[in-house]
Amino acid sequence: MARVLVTSGPTRQYLDPVRFLTNGSTGRMGQALCQALQDGGHQVVVVSGPVEVAYPDGVEVVAVVTTEEMLSACQGLLPACDGVVGVAAPCDYRVEHVAERKIAKTGQPLLLRLVETPDILATLGEHKGDRWMVGFALETDDRRFRALAKLERKKCDLMILNSPQAISSVDTRVEILDPAGDVVAAIAGDKRSVAARIVAEIEHRLVRRG
Amino acid sequence: MARVLVTSGPTRQYLDPVRFLTNGSTGRMGQALCQALQDGGHQVVVVSGPVEVAYPDGVEVVAVVTTEEMLSACQGLLPACDGVVGVAAPCDYRVEHVAERKIAKTGQPLLLRLVETPDILATLGEHKGDRWMVGFALETDDRRFRALAKLERKKCDLMILNSPQAISSVDTRVEILDPAGDVVAAIAGDKRSVAARIVAEIEHRLVRRG
Repeated sequence: MARVLVTSGPTRQYLDPVRFLTNGSTGRMGQALCQALQDGGHQVVVVSGPVEVAYPDGVEVVAVVTTEEMLSACQGLLPACDGVVGVAAPCDYRVEHVAERKIAKTGQPLLLRLVETPDILATLGEHKGDRWMVGFALETDDRRFRALAKLERKKCDLMILNSPQAISSVDTRVEILDPAGDVVAAIAGDKRSVAARIVAEIEHRLVRRG
Repeated sequence: MARVLVTSGPTRQYLDPVRFLTNGSTGRMGQALCQALQDGGHQVVVVSGPVEVAYPDGVEVVAVVTTEEMLSACQGLLPACDGVVGVAAPCDYRVEHVAERKIAKTGQPLLLRLVETPDILATLGEHKGDRWMVGFALETDDRRFRALAKLERKKCDLMILNSPQAISSVDTRVEILDPAGDVVAAIAGDKRSVAARIVAEIEHRLVRRG
């Protein structure tokens, strides 16, 4: 049995009190992974951006809004966990200056300067110690190549590669890459059964070796 | 009895296949207004951006993603409707050029040039004929003044003024402004009861006079 930190859902980066930058992550894959981990007898704490899904009873939920908040919550939780499953889709850009008041329309273009938010898994990876980490990569081009680069940069032990079509759908199709760049599994189906297969791979390759 | 066109939920304006600009509208107020209109015996067609809520059975739902799609759907439906309730929170800026592929992070700032999307109610208002139109205004500053300016620009018959706190909460607090700038009602409560009161005002002031 492991104590697992899961990140789930999107984050939001506000431009002003009303408008924000985000993505279509619904938290459903995170929900399915929490359930599958719990079914496997593991303790789960999920740090989740704003979602409409409900996480399973018995899972500790920490609700956050921005990427910075998600990182900060994870940094607090990591020391007490054995592994991390980073399925969240944190918004990776923020506006440099957030407007305190709603930006009024003027009829003119609005120029925004976006800067990158901290990379949650890469930051956690720097202090992972003997903990295992599983990341997710959503790529549209050079998919395996980019996913493997992410695995290395984020110091992950496995990287789950999926595609944008999966982000708000019921079904999904993923490949699991190991640090050698090999596809150790290719799984398709509804998110619940794919989550169960991913957890089985994690248990086989990471949890039991600890 | 009237045939009523309702707009509901947020819209999304994509930067690339993954990231988009939006707001926290959940569609709950739209859902409540559809229900209240239907309870009043009216026929309802709702044009809705991406939401997790379910609209009442018997309501015709047209699902859209972007502001341009919402406008286009409304323009097609308007001729057959007697009135419009515009409770959607359409994203009012879009990036000038949408990237076909996911924008890769480079470590450098990303400069975005946003341009305004078409104003749905103002555009519909130009061809409203003898139809009535009710708008919603979400303002953080100079609230009544800005709401009244919107009422005039959008050629609305009533403007419902609410605040950002309402956008993803269960409870809400609104003021109803008429074209003279008078607050004809101030209502607070859960969205369902507020929706019922708004529909009662619409029936009293707009539907019955037709």
